[in-house]
Parts: sequence; C-alpha cells; structure tokens
Amino acid sequence: MSIQTVEWVKNSIKIIDQNKLPHKLEFLFCKDIDSLYNAIKNMNIRGAPALGVVGAFGIVLAAYNSKAETYKELSRDLKKAGDYLKTSRPTAVNLFWAIDRMLRKFKSLKEKSISAINKYLLKEALNIRQEDKRICRNIGEYGAKLINDGDNILTHCNAGGLATSDFGTALGIIYTAQKQNKAIHVYVDETRPRLQGARLTCWELQYNKIPYTLICDNMAADLMHKGKIDKIIVGADRIAKNGDTANKIGTYSLAVLSNFHKIPFYVAAPLSTFDSQISNGVAIVVEERDEDEIKEFCGKSIAPVEAKVYNPAFDITPCNLITAIITEKGIMEFPFDEKIKKICQ
Amino acid sequence: MSIQTVEWVKNSIKIIDQNKLPHKLEFLFCKDIDSLYNAIKNMNIRGAPALGVVGAFGIVLAAYNSKAETYKELSRDLKKAGDYLKTSRPTAVNLFWAIDRMLRKFKSLKEKSISAINKYLLKEALNIRQEDKRICRNIGEYGAKLINDGDNILTHCNAGGLATSDFGTALGIIYTAQKQNKAIHVYVDETRPRLQGARLTCWELQYNKIPYTLICDNMAADLMHKGKIDKIIVGADRIAKNGDTANKIGTYSLAVLSNFHKIPFYVAAPLSTFDSQISNGVAIVVEERDEDEIKEFCGKSIAPVEAKVYNPAFDITPCNLITAIITEKGIMEFPFDEKIKKICQ
Repeated sequence: MSIQTVEWVKNSIKIIDQNKLPHKLEFLFCKDIDSLYNAIKNMNIRGAPALGVVGAFGIVLAAYNSKAETYKELSRDLKKAGDYLKTSRPTAVNLFWAIDRMLRKFKSLKEKSISAINKYLLKEALNIRQEDKRICRNIGEYGAKLINDGDNILTHCNAGGLATSDFGTALGIIYTAQKQNKAIHVYVDETRPRLQGARLTCWELQYNKIPYTLICDNMAADLMHKGKIDKIIVGADRIAKNGDTANKIGTYSLAVLSNFHKIPFYVAAPLSTFDSQISNGVAIVVEERDEDEIKEFCGKSIAPVEAKVYNPAFDITPCNLITAIITEKGIMEFPFDEKIKKICQ
Repeated sequence: MSIQTVEWVKNSIKIIDQNKLPHKLEFLFCKDIDSLYNAIKNMNIRGAPALGVVGAFGIVLAAYNSKAETYKELSRDLKKAGDYLKTSRPTAVNLFWAIDRMLRKFKSLKEKSISAINKYLLKEALNIRQEDKRICRNIGEYGAKLINDGDNILTHCNAGGLATSDFGTALGIIYTAQKQNKAIHVYVDETRPRLQGARLTCWELQYNKIPYTLICDNMAADLMHKGKIDKIIVGADRIAKNGDTANKIGTYSLAVLSNFHKIPFYVAAPLSTFDSQISNGVAIVVEERDEDEIKEFCGKSIAPVEAKVYNPAFDITPCNLITAIITEKGIMEFPFDEKIKKICQ
C-alpha cells in the first residue's frame, strides 16, 4: 500500500482510524499520550508491528510534550509514558519491544541537550518505522517463495499494511507474490468479533487489486474439506522461544483444521514479535476484551442483556501445528527452538 | 419451553418471529402460502423439525384457502402448494418429509368431503406437531444418559425449542439433564452469519435458567484446548444413510476440532431428518444464501461493497467424525450404516 498507517506530523502521531474502515479513510491525530493510549485500547490502531511503530512515536510524543528541563526529569516522564502505554494492550510484544528500544536510545543520549534528545528520539522512531517497511518487504520476499501461481490462500484477521507501517507481513507475502505475477486468490476470514478481516483485509486487498472472497470464520473448515485452500498465512502478536504463537483469536482453530486437512500453516512476523523471555506459549498473557464486542454488533444488541461472554482477543497456537515461521531473516520450519535461538541472537 | 414455536390459530399459522429475538417476542400470522414461503425463506421460522411442522400446516393452509370444489381440484392445489413450499429452502429434509406425509394422508381421504378432508388434514398436521413434542422428549431422555453432572457442553446454532415444536433436540437433551438435577453449563457458538446462537439459543437458555456463556465461533477451539468443553451436541438438517450429517455451517469445523481434542461429538435429530434416498453426504444439496447476510449487519455495511462472498448455510460432517447420533429410538454409535437401516425401517 502507498497509504501510511502511522506518520509523525506537526508534533503529533497521525494514524489511519481503522475503526472507520472500510467505508471511510479518516485519520486520527494523537497529540498526547492519553489520546494515543485510547487509540490503541479502542483499536483505532492495531496490529503487532504497527503497535511497535506507534509505541516508538509515543515516546517521542512524551518527550515533545514534556516540560522537563533536565535529563533526569525527562527520564522520569518518558519512563512514566512508556509504562502507561504498555498497559494499553498486554499481548503484542512489539509494543514493549519498541518502547524499550526507545528508552535504551534515550539512555545513550545522556550528554545531549533536551532539544537534541527530542530530535534523536524522533530519528529513532522514524528508523523503527523505516526498518519495519524494509523488514516487511524482506518477509514478503522470503514468504513469496512458498507461494505458487494459482494458490488459494486463507488469512485471518489483518496482517497487512494496516497492521504494519505500510506493507504487511502475511499480506506482504501476497503482495510480493502478486508482483512476481503469481495469480493469487485470498479467502478472508471475517474475524469475529471485531471483523478486522471483513473491514481491513478486504479493504486492503480491494485497494491492491487482489482477488478475494470474504467468509465467516466458521466456513474455513468447509473450504479446506473441499480442497479450496492451498495455504494458510497469518501474522503473530507474540512468539515464544519454542515457536508457540499468540495471534488473533481463531488462529489456533485454523491451525488445528489445517493440520487435519494437511494444509501448510504459515506464520509471518518480524523478529520484534519474538519474546526471548518466555520458553513457550503458556507464559503469554492473553487480553480479554469487553463483552459488548460480542453482545453488540454495530451498537445493536444481539444477545440477551444478561448473557455471560468469553472474549479472549488472542489464542496460542502450539509450535508443532505451525509448518514454518517466516521472518525478515528467512523461513524457519518446525522444530523452531534452535533456529529461533540462532536468528534472535 | 412452554412457548409454542408453531400454532394453528384462526385458520392461519402462528409462529414466533425468530428474527425479532432475543429482545422482542413477537408472532407472525401466515394466512397464505406466500407469506409462509417468505417466513421460511427469511428464516422468521427455521430449524429442521420446526420446518417439518410448519410445512405440514402449510398443506392445511393450502387446503383451507383453496377454492376447489372437487377432490381433483384440491389435489392440484395441494400439490402446487407443496411443490412451492419445498423450494423455500433446499437442505432440511424434514420440510419435504412433512409435506409428503400430508399429501399421502390426503391421498387416503379420496372418499371424504372437502370439509372433512380439511379437518383430517388439520388433524394430521396437529399429530405431526404432537409427535415432534414427544420425539424431542424421547431424544432428551436418551441423550441425557450421555450427560454427566457438571458437564460443559458446547452447542452450535439453535437446536432448541425454537427449532422444533417446543422442546428441542440438542437443547432438549440439556433440558432433560437439567430436570435430572445435573448441573450443566453451555457454551453457545454465536453462529455467524445469522447469529442463531447469540439470538435464539441464548434466549432459550436464559428462559430456561440454564447457565451459559456466549462465544464467537472461532473461540471454540481455544476452549477445547483449555479442557473447558466436555461434550459437543448439535442438531441436524439432513442425515444420509451412512450418517453423514448436514447441519448449520460451522458444524463440520467443530467436528474436526472435537476429533483433534478427543471430545465426544453428538448429533441429536428425529428420524424425520434421515434421508433414505441418499447413501452419503455428497448428495445433500447445500443452500447458498445471500451475500448481504455476511456483508451487512442490521443494514449496515461491514465490508467493501465490491467484496465477493461465500455463504453456504450448511456444511456436511462425515459420519466418522460423529461419536453418536441420538434419535427418539435411542443412541447409535459410529459406524451407523446398519443401525440407521434398522431404525429407519
């Protein structure tokens, strides 16, 4: 996509308001940490790599808005902003990764003036965004090697340009295959409850002129059974040291179904999605979101008001159900332990 | 439930308007075949056994509305009405079964007066309804033997009182277990795209004071993985001679997932759901419904207007993924061929 998901404009973070898609391409300008926090929490911006980029700009925003006159005061303000932003959503590790990287950068700037620090921090955030663009294209190049002309690819949620700076991970692979003149057709899981597939992935594929068919999540198995799916590619929100992968709720279901139907199941993600602190998926914190995401549809109640709801935003796919993980460094096939160790060094 | 899904009132068919649930309990009165046809097609009434009952009353309606003065004229009118009603929805075999049974009854009434025929036809339709009530309770009795105190049961779509005369098949088993003082908790798949789980099953369980939790369809696998599901029970729209079962889209997905997680997968259905004409599920016609069921919600567009959609109303679960089929005659375990042959004689 040529549309930028996250930009730094006039001392504020400009983001596509993803809750307005697919029918309105509108932008939100986050001028302070609170509005950024809310934009993340309400999923105006979402997608693990995009959360990383926006988290980095969040530290810039905190620096620009700080009234600190000393390094120490600024340090306190940035730490506070980082800690606060980290509580917006608990699962995608890229947010933590980017905030920590920004704070490490800040530490290296102790000798600089406040105004110089601000410039360096902005430069670092822009670097993170620029790296994301390159990383996604590298993932695309590697992943496209797995794609054949004529493939029908199923994807879940949105791991596209909207989930990154501009290109995408899972969808980046499809865009790259398209550039290689491979004819691709995509089946798009609508992805309940927030419908990122119907709203965001369809919008992106439409924009990029990739043929696609929208389905409800519960139709994927039927298509697999009928031999209509050649490959499944999804993104990731956090990957443990053994390859266990947290991704949008419904991903685990697809992994089991692909296993049963002997269809390759691929995860595409940058290295910033790997959490070197945890040995497996059990340790991944899964966000549970508000029950009204399920009980209401476009503001209209669709279930008894008394209904109890279970609404996890993510699930964990065990590594042994993943055929391969595609990163900017190449394709890793299961088992992953040693390969992840090597690649994350 | 004490609420009646289908009644014969003042020469018209009174049905619960299921598209208004869960927030409004309203009734529709079908006074002619066209309004009944539309009520079936638009799913104001749905559920395989309920479609059987309403189809039977449809023949009564045709007889009452007929201007025929001779048996031959009436025969032509009823045949026409039956053929027309059969085109409303193609998958649930109970509709065909009930219409054919009514027309067989009509054939046996050749010597009667028109007014007597009307009465006998009404009596036959009332019999079908009464039988459905008894059958569902028998299914409940047999099925409840499989249920343990404390079970967490997952169900899909609505196979409850609303899908039958008043008691249900899959939910009838749960109601019976409840009466036996077994503590049951039900996980309810919302069941996209028409949300029969969120709207109808939740409403019924609420009404019957059964504890339940509403989930999106794509969350079922996660719950299975976490050991939260002890059993899965669903209804059926058509069952082939080998046990292959057509049911609401998403059922096959659950069957595969239950197989992977070694969770019993049960189908509950009356014998009128069995199609003795077809040897396996390949021959079952699966209705594809309008794309706007997925692309719109309550008239609000949730996908690009250009989006292509795949919207099958049902899928086919191969018999080998079904642990047992529960009918009014007892519990049949896989393999089913000989057992179905015997039971359907």
